[in-house]
Amino acid sequence: MNTTQDQSSPPSFLLEELAELTGARIKGDPGIRIFGLGSIEDAHADQLSFLSDKRYLPLLSECKAAALIVPPALEYLDRPLLVSTQPYLTMAHVAQLFWEPPYLPVGVDATAFLGEGVHLGKAVSVGPLAHVGRHCRIGEGTRVYGGAYLGCDVEVGDHCFIYPGVTIIDRCSIGNRVIIHSGTVVGSDGFGFAQDEKGRHVKIPQTGIVRIDDDVEIGANCTIDRAAFGRTWIQRGVKIDNLVQIAHNVVIGEYSILIAQVGVSGSTRVGKHVILAGQVGVVGHIEIGDGVRVGAQSGVGRSLKAGEDMSGCPVMPHREWLKMSAVLRHLPQLREELRQLKMKVQELEKVIHGE
Amino acid sequence: MNTTQDQSSPPSFLLEELAELTGARIKGDPGIRIFGLGSIEDAHADQLSFLSDKRYLPLLSECKAAALIVPPALEYLDRPLLVSTQPYLTMAHVAQLFWEPPYLPVGVDATAFLGEGVHLGKAVSVGPLAHVGRHCRIGEGTRVYGGAYLGCDVEVGDHCFIYPGVTIIDRCSIGNRVIIHSGTVVGSDGFGFAQDEKGRHVKIPQTGIVRIDDDVEIGANCTIDRAAFGRTWIQRGVKIDNLVQIAHNVVIGEYSILIAQVGVSGSTRVGKHVILAGQVGVVGHIEIGDGVRVGAQSGVGRSLKAGEDMSGCPVMPHREWLKMSAVLRHLPQLREELRQLKMKVQELEKVIHGE
Amino acid sequence: MNTTQDQSSPPSFLLEELAELTGARIKGDPGIRIFGLGSIEDAHADQLSFLSDKRYLPLLSECKAAALIVPPALEYLDRPLLVSTQPYLTMAHVAQLFWEPPYLPVGVDATAFLGEGVHLGKAVSVGPLAHVGRHCRIGEGTRVYGGAYLGCDVEVGDHCFIYPGVTIIDRCSIGNRVIIHSGTVVGSDGFGFAQDEKGRHVKIPQTGIVRIDDDVEIGANCTIDRAAFGRTWIQRGVKIDNLVQIAHNVVIGEYSILIAQVGVSGSTRVGKHVILAGQVGVVGHIEIGDGVRVGAQSGVGRSLKAGEDMSGCPVMPHREWLKMSAVLRHLPQLREELRQLKMKVQELEKVIHGE
Repeated sequence: MNTTQDQSSPPSFLLEELAELTGARIKGDPGIRIFGLGSIEDAHADQLSFLSDKRYLPLLSECKAAALIVPPALEYLDRPLLVSTQPYLTMAHVAQLFWEPPYLPVGVDATAFLGEGVHLGKAVSVGPLAHVGRHCRIGEGTRVYGGAYLGCDVEVGDHCFIYPGVTIIDRCSIGNRVIIHSGTVVGSDGFGFAQDEKGRHVKIPQTGIVRIDDDVEIGANCTIDRAAFGRTWIQRGVKIDNLVQIAHNVVIGEYSILIAQVGVSGSTRVGKHVILAGQVGVVGHIEIGDGVRVGAQSGVGRSLKAGEDMSGCPVMPHREWLKMSAVLRHLPQLREELRQLKMKVQELEKVIHGE
Repeated sequence: MNTTQDQSSPPSFLLEELAELTGARIKGDPGIRIFGLGSIEDAHADQLSFLSDKRYLPLLSECKAAALIVPPALEYLDRPLLVSTQPYLTMAHVAQLFWEPPYLPVGVDATAFLGEGVHLGKAVSVGPLAHVGRHCRIGEGTRVYGGAYLGCDVEVGDHCFIYPGVTIIDRCSIGNRVIIHSGTVVGSDGFGFAQDEKGRHVKIPQTGIVRIDDDVEIGANCTIDRAAFGRTWIQRGVKIDNLVQIAHNVVIGEYSILIAQVGVSGSTRVGKHVILAGQVGVVGHIEIGDGVRVGAQSGVGRSLKAGEDMSGCPVMPHREWLKMSAVLRHLPQLREELRQLKMKVQELEKVIHGE
Repeated sequence: MNTTQDQSSPPSFLLEELAELTGARIKGDPGIRIFGLGSIEDAHADQLSFLSDKRYLPLLSECKAAALIVPPALEYLDRPLLVSTQPYLTMAHVAQLFWEPPYLPVGVDATAFLGEGVHLGKAVSVGPLAHVGRHCRIGEGTRVYGGAYLGCDVEVGDHCFIYPGVTIIDRCSIGNRVIIHSGTVVGSDGFGFAQDEKGRHVKIPQTGIVRIDDDVEIGANCTIDRAAFGRTWIQRGVKIDNLVQIAHNVVIGEYSILIAQVGVSGSTRVGKHVILAGQVGVVGHIEIGDGVRVGAQSGVGRSLKAGEDMSGCPVMPHREWLKMSAVLRHLPQLREELRQLKMKVQELEKVIHGE
């Protein structure tokens, strides 16, 4: 087994190194060299895998992995182990150690377009056919992949990933360690019109910006509109999945999660640590409190208080929604039972009040 | 205060100039110079702001704006005012006067690709790394931003904005003063397949085009498919938000509004001045009459008559939907009440008919 | 009529040639030369049209087409005909004969970027400003349109169409005869995070790939995420409409159809010949059996058995959903009837049990 690392060989770590880097406890040979991470079904014989739930124990007999990340409850397993009270988190940390980003060398490719007065930090990459407009400022170690488009006066912080085909329109501002996936548009015009006397729509120019704070990740083909005035604001640590729509002047609070195909309408304020599940729609000009969770496909038409757990369209408490949903398909039967009961009562009335 | 305007200074107007340009009435000093427009909370001391609703009067004490656009009902305010019977419309007009588009100089950038036989009108801009295919015709004053892609034989009228990353496939035709935001695709293939005897899907080539009429605005990351035969047609003054899907052979009538994440299926005809709210889905091959309004997340499975106001999935009159929605969460309780009532009636029957 | 074909004239076929190429039976003059295909309303006098349903017979009097594709039931029509037991399929085949793809010459455009070690098959096209990363392999006759982006180590098979603005991230693998429409992103990161003790989201690097098998077509502005480990897999003959989201590690089985704006969450396995109608959402980690059909806007929250026909949110059998939907709007009336019935029963109880 190769115990040296150079540029041409893949990264590898000793099991004891991984234990030290992630704070996990080791069981078995600390000198095993690990060349990557794989799922329990697919891990190679020189890779690490993970097992956090007893449900998957039957898969273990076929598992070729050199070692496993497990919770203390599975410490009894007779294999080399990294024991962690948070095995999923440990897995994430280990995977980050092995991860290699899509290829992009440091420096500005000869085919990229750079406007005048661009300021690039150290070790910035600007890929082939990328566009960095005039007066942009790009921080240290940030990667602007090929075909990405930064307009003018855009600011991007340090160690960001701006993937191929991302568009960031003029004057928007991106923090540090932000990841934006391909096809996402940041800073398109908000949807604002006044109606004239004939019902024609007169555009309200959208003069604001989008501000994205540190440690945000935004999926592919999302749209984040610039504010009419002021800013649309994605706060620190927010994670946004693919095809999500954020309208103008929306604020998404710290560490909130928006799953794929969610839409948030204009000027709505979403709190911290909120979870909006897939395809949820949120109307404009409302407030969603901290820690709110909204179930998939729900329609949020009013403000929600901190900690509420809601589902349905329109939303109701999630537990009520579960009960309601169980009854819903029986609705035709309920109507029929009601009809029959009405007839019985009519007959009783006839008997009692006499005919 | 700077009273001259040159290329390096931002645009500014005297209050009396703004009154004259928008038809508003002035109250207070007509010689105040205005350097922009801001919201009531954020306007600077040399900016104009607007106040259309008494609800926001409490914000006024903190408002630094040099003057306000107000409706006649607020004319009593002791500040410099532009009084307008349509203050929101006046605000839009004023904002347009101050608006500066994302930076793009007139002319064809050296890094752009121009096919043979392209015809460019006066004062056209083609940005860096843009693609204008052969035989395209682009009208006066139109801006094709960097990274936009026009295929071959595409026609774009005068004074359009084709933003970065827009794709318009061959032969599509765009009117005047059309705005298309980043990532939107015009003229991708409609979704049409015939099934063979084994259930495999045989592609029906989509030979038609997309036609977009004057004064249309289309948001970011939308998809507007070309027709199977003939054309998909977006008529004059239509406004489309982000992530909207328009299938092949659809017609969207004049001045209709489609909010974010709406989907309209193939061959459906949407009338004039229709509003489809966010995440609405519309099936194919139906007609939606003029002036119809459909509430957010609704599913339109049948044709709708002019003027109908609908919600729900499947759609029902909006007022019925409101009542239904209020009852929905009580459905489990209704079932329980019905169950108890049945028992009571059974007991009554026993008493009456004797045991 | 022009009976020769050269590069400057449009393609044309004799009616008898079309009959032979598609297996249809001819009625009338076999020597009619056909220059294209048009709808029954719009076909020119030198074009072929099609009529598969008696409903459209009234349109025939205005139809200028030189000949018609019809089913045997319409063989009696007194016009030149191509008679086919599968007229829609025959129409698809004929349309393919006439179809000309968006313009792109064979060869690598001078403005395209090619990384080192790229391997191109015969007759490959790489359009202006396209990006083909190092070590890509592109098969015979494949077209990479202008502005498309292939990362590094991407494999694309023979005779594919990679339309303008498509992004395929490193190491993804595409089969033969695959069509990917503009703006679609293949291989963006799956949405995977572990939470640390403070509720912050720690990224789980997505180290897998996307594999797309032969004969798949993917619409515009879709997102297909790469797997956390292993692969996200779109199997042979699958057809995906626009703005569809496929999460990491999903498998879509052969010949399934996903209509616009569908979202499928992580690790879900969709069977063969499944149809998911527009805006359907599917949760993660479930199995959808072969031949399942799910109605528009439905929410699939659990596994479905082969052949099930489902609708609603949450899903129920489609026939139940139809009945339920018909009752839904009467829910307020049901509650009112129940209330009145309770009062009647109370009165009856008073009468019977005395006061």
